[in-house]
Amino acid sequence: MSETQMPSARTRVVREPHRAVYDREFVYKILDEGFLCHVGFTVDGQPFVIPTSYGRKDATLYIHGSAASRMLRQMKDGVPVCVTVTLLDGLVLARSVFNHSMNYRSVVILGKATLVDDPDEKLAALRILSEHILPGRWDDARQPNDRELKATSVLRMPIEEFSAKVRSGPPIDDEEDYSFPTWAGVLPLQMVAGELINDARLPPGIEVPRYVIGYTRKR
Amino acid sequence: MSETQMPSARTRVVREPHRAVYDREFVYKILDEGFLCHVGFTVDGQPFVIPTSYGRKDATLYIHGSAASRMLRQMKDGVPVCVTVTLLDGLVLARSVFNHSMNYRSVVILGKATLVDDPDEKLAALRILSEHILPGRWDDARQPNDRELKATSVLRMPIEEFSAKVRSGPPIDDEEDYSFPTWAGVLPLQMVAGELINDARLPPGIEVPRYVIGYTRKR
Repeated sequence: MSETQMPSARTRVVREPHRAVYDREFVYKILDEGFLCHVGFTVDGQPFVIPTSYGRKDATLYIHGSAASRMLRQMKDGVPVCVTVTLLDGLVLARSVFNHSMNYRSVVILGKATLVDDPDEKLAALRILSEHILPGRWDDARQPNDRELKATSVLRMPIEEFSAKVRSGPPIDDEEDYSFPTWAGVLPLQMVAGELINDARLPPGIEVPRYVIGYTRKR
Repeated sequence: MSETQMPSARTRVVREPHRAVYDREFVYKILDEGFLCHVGFTVDGQPFVIPTSYGRKDATLYIHGSAASRMLRQMKDGVPVCVTVTLLDGLVLARSVFNHSMNYRSVVILGKATLVDDPDEKLAALRILSEHILPGRWDDARQPNDRELKATSVLRMPIEEFSAKVRSGPPIDDEEDYSFPTWAGVLPLQMVAGELINDARLPPGIEVPRYVIGYTRKR
């Protein structure tokens, strides 16, 4: 599907279309800030939605296969999936209940996910996944051996058919509600790192790596 | 489906079954800490996964219908959905790449979602949704009028067929990796509230309500 066809009929945002964004770089920015996605697939007419991690290289999304155990059983040339990434930015408190909202950025990608079979591509994909979540970690850890590589599944999905949806900024109330005597504004929400927990079996003298300190997803 | 049948064949956790929990109270605790879910449904063989808010009353999940515009078009007696709630608790950094993981708590609920038609139930459901996200807010805001109530859709879903999956605690490395010279431990992650942003049109003298201060999802 070529870029000029975005949005497709399937990714066109139906509800609140003014919040839709179909720009590829904008979508990448959201994908690069998140690392947890929800993968949807259908088995015998029943949809399943499973959380898992992902990474991105150019226009390819790599998805950790732990989500896929159900799906993989029936997959050969790829199965239709929907990958959704949501970044929650805050609660929007309006004067009226009706105008309450959330600030968020979300991406929906439709397409077929296929198994990464080739060991070299799989190793490269796992590195992309790892570096996406915690840049610098891969080279600092013990690399996967053949057995581990075989025991891990990675899915590949093209970022071709997609849309983003965004809400930001203050509450928008009906004009006559601005005199309603309640507090209104935004309660920002953010995912932050807490205090590091050393593993109990850490030998003395091993320092916390620089890439872990001050961890943030802001890009 | 009676409680004794949990897990069903469909909700039985296939991958890492030792992390599965089928206890209803445990599931409620996760549902009550979160308020953002990912709803999966299928249209013409294509799965869609849409983020939206939810609330719970006893064994009923109420889902904000903004997610459902696509789905509602084809829905009469309810459509099969999957509602997934994921709380991310941290990155688990092991000595080996293979044993890296995340700490999380997630719930998957399968079933049919139906539209809440009755205006009284809809109003009650919206209140449940609102109080689930920010207890105390409903009574402090301008209540929905008939027009607004009609313009809002709410879905109802029984919490009958479900499973939870949990990982917590330190990394678990292969015994021979404990001597590998890299830092290992947990990087906790948490959703926290930032500094409140007053609406620009807030009249002087309106104070920040107590229920907004120190907002946390911990239950």
